[in-house]
Amino acid sequence: MKINGKHYHTIWLKEGNDKIVQAIDQSCLPFELKVVELKSCDDVYLAIKNMLLRGAPLIGVAAAYGMYISAIEFYGKNNFEENIKGAAAKLKSSRPTAVNLAFAVDKMLDEILKSKGNEIEVALKKVKEIEEFEIESCKKIGEYGVKLIEEISKNKNGETVNILTHCNAGWLACIDYGTATAPVYAAFDKGIKVHVWVDETRPKNQGARLTAFELEQHGVPYTVISDNTGGHLMQNGMVDMVIVGSDRTAVNGDVANKIGTYLKALAAKDNNIPFYVALPSSSIDFSISDGLKQIPIEERSEDEVKYVEGFLNGNIEKMLLTTDKAKCLNYAFDITPAKYITGLITEKGICKPNKKSILKLFK
Amino acid sequence: MKINGKHYHTIWLKEGNDKIVQAIDQSCLPFELKVVELKSCDDVYLAIKNMLLRGAPLIGVAAAYGMYISAIEFYGKNNFEENIKGAAAKLKSSRPTAVNLAFAVDKMLDEILKSKGNEIEVALKKVKEIEEFEIESCKKIGEYGVKLIEEISKNKNGETVNILTHCNAGWLACIDYGTATAPVYAAFDKGIKVHVWVDETRPKNQGARLTAFELEQHGVPYTVISDNTGGHLMQNGMVDMVIVGSDRTAVNGDVANKIGTYLKALAAKDNNIPFYVALPSSSIDFSISDGLKQIPIEERSEDEVKYVEGFLNGNIEKMLLTTDKAKCLNYAFDITPAKYITGLITEKGICKPNKKSILKLFK
Repeated sequence: MKINGKHYHTIWLKEGNDKIVQAIDQSCLPFELKVVELKSCDDVYLAIKNMLLRGAPLIGVAAAYGMYISAIEFYGKNNFEENIKGAAAKLKSSRPTAVNLAFAVDKMLDEILKSKGNEIEVALKKVKEIEEFEIESCKKIGEYGVKLIEEISKNKNGETVNILTHCNAGWLACIDYGTATAPVYAAFDKGIKVHVWVDETRPKNQGARLTAFELEQHGVPYTVISDNTGGHLMQNGMVDMVIVGSDRTAVNGDVANKIGTYLKALAAKDNNIPFYVALPSSSIDFSISDGLKQIPIEERSEDEVKYVEGFLNGNIEKMLLTTDKAKCLNYAFDITPAKYITGLITEKGICKPNKKSILKLFK
Repeated sequence: MKINGKHYHTIWLKEGNDKIVQAIDQSCLPFELKVVELKSCDDVYLAIKNMLLRGAPLIGVAAAYGMYISAIEFYGKNNFEENIKGAAAKLKSSRPTAVNLAFAVDKMLDEILKSKGNEIEVALKKVKEIEEFEIESCKKIGEYGVKLIEEISKNKNGETVNILTHCNAGWLACIDYGTATAPVYAAFDKGIKVHVWVDETRPKNQGARLTAFELEQHGVPYTVISDNTGGHLMQNGMVDMVIVGSDRTAVNGDVANKIGTYLKALAAKDNNIPFYVALPSSSIDFSISDGLKQIPIEERSEDEVKYVEGFLNGNIEKMLLTTDKAKCLNYAFDITPAKYITGLITEKGICKPNKKSILKLFK
């Protein structure tokens, strides 16, 4: 996708030096377009943990790049195997909920350990493969998802289709296209009238900061709303469908996604509005049969709730929102039970959020 | 209630000069305790419109004070009747959703117009009466509501009762005690273990700023959470009951309250958690039979969503949260349908949210 007319991915190898990874530092958007260089396993670990890079598909690919960088870092030195395993464990510990991350690291570790002597080349080949899969998956999600928007548009006689999304499941959360946004971009590019309700998504405001930014860059009409607003809009016929992403989806169709997703699913159900989750199969955890009981929910620093980041007098600042002494709590995700989800939009097609439909598509 | 150990109401007549109204400027809390003087109808109108004073019971009383101040302002001058009617219209236009405001202004206007010659004395007597009613109502709400908390506490064998609230329906929204918080304070004062989950309540953050502040001042344990978090807490057994306030309640039991209340009611229903609304009868609009269809929802400036207010380097600042060009939308309230409400806690007792029960209690 484009920023100021120039095509970007979220992460890439530095031109002229494929031993350095570069990425957009999303903690500065939309206020500043900053590119960071990641030269060590620690760099990648911190970039993921501190959310310079975020979004399930992207942190999967970023962690894979982390393994590639680690292979370079430790190659030809003592205890390579021990060190590369340590790098894998460290990267996997950076964030617990998005399953893409653990999957990508495990795949990379496997390949690296199998390849005696040409670890770096093998790692590079594998990371490119994982990256390509994510890009292609998002493109396919767009192709399948756009049909749903097209149908609503037809039923509304070509009037604007209003889509609500939560957090950022856009191209910034992936490598390109996005998951939840891929169908929106595809619809917009086809000339279908669309408008996106962008949930602010406290505490980190990925909606207000990232989704608004990328929709604006692509020219898609959007409106930012507080996280409290979606229910009222749905009650009043102002939302035609909801599309969100997923950090981990269990085989029973339960979806872990940004905290607050569950509330929007309840409101969609209450108002008979279709609620779709767009995700590549790399976000499906086939080992988990009950999302509500088994998906670990990350708890992040209370300071993300106590303070908010924004832009003031030309600087990105953190501002206190409550009393000095206030205790806050910060769960990053919640689980939307499968029964509230209309369908999963994947790279292989759209399926029902249940074991039978998911396995039919993927096994 | 107390601030730093000193007893306060939210609004009062200046000591030694009962022609001037003083009030806590809530737009500065919790960062600064500032008292404003209201000397004209315009002062009161702007203080309500710009939310220096907010909360349904308080803006009712504040508008009544506005009528008293207007009576002083226009007394003995030409066109008194015309001017006082103009003041009433202006005050009523300051905020459309909370019905207490219109009721209080109408009552004041009636009394003032009836009293030939002693308009100021009559206005003062009436405003004191309205104020006293609100204080007494909140106290009674506490007495009825505490029984609900006591019962949960017993069922939990004295373990902490976790109560979620949205926005500020505390004493700052009233004159004293609060509506939603009155049962909490009563329980705390009786030695029942309570803990309050405080929804931040974007865009104006009345939860993080006001509810957190007043609970802290009273010593009640609380935790601030983002508005997105309540559903997850309810799914995981971390909420025993929800108590919120109301800006206007229809005779059918539909409740208008701060935007986002509806989402919490849906989550409470989904997890079998009792959801109570605490309100004085001055918030019931007996002329409205269908809240969802008939209660007007205030739309406020999009800048309240685009920017956020907080505390930085010793100053209260407004910070940009999204792109420069972002379009935002800001509905201040939503409607929670009666079917999601367990009961209404009023000054006359607890009733079901339906016409029969409400009229049995109040007519």
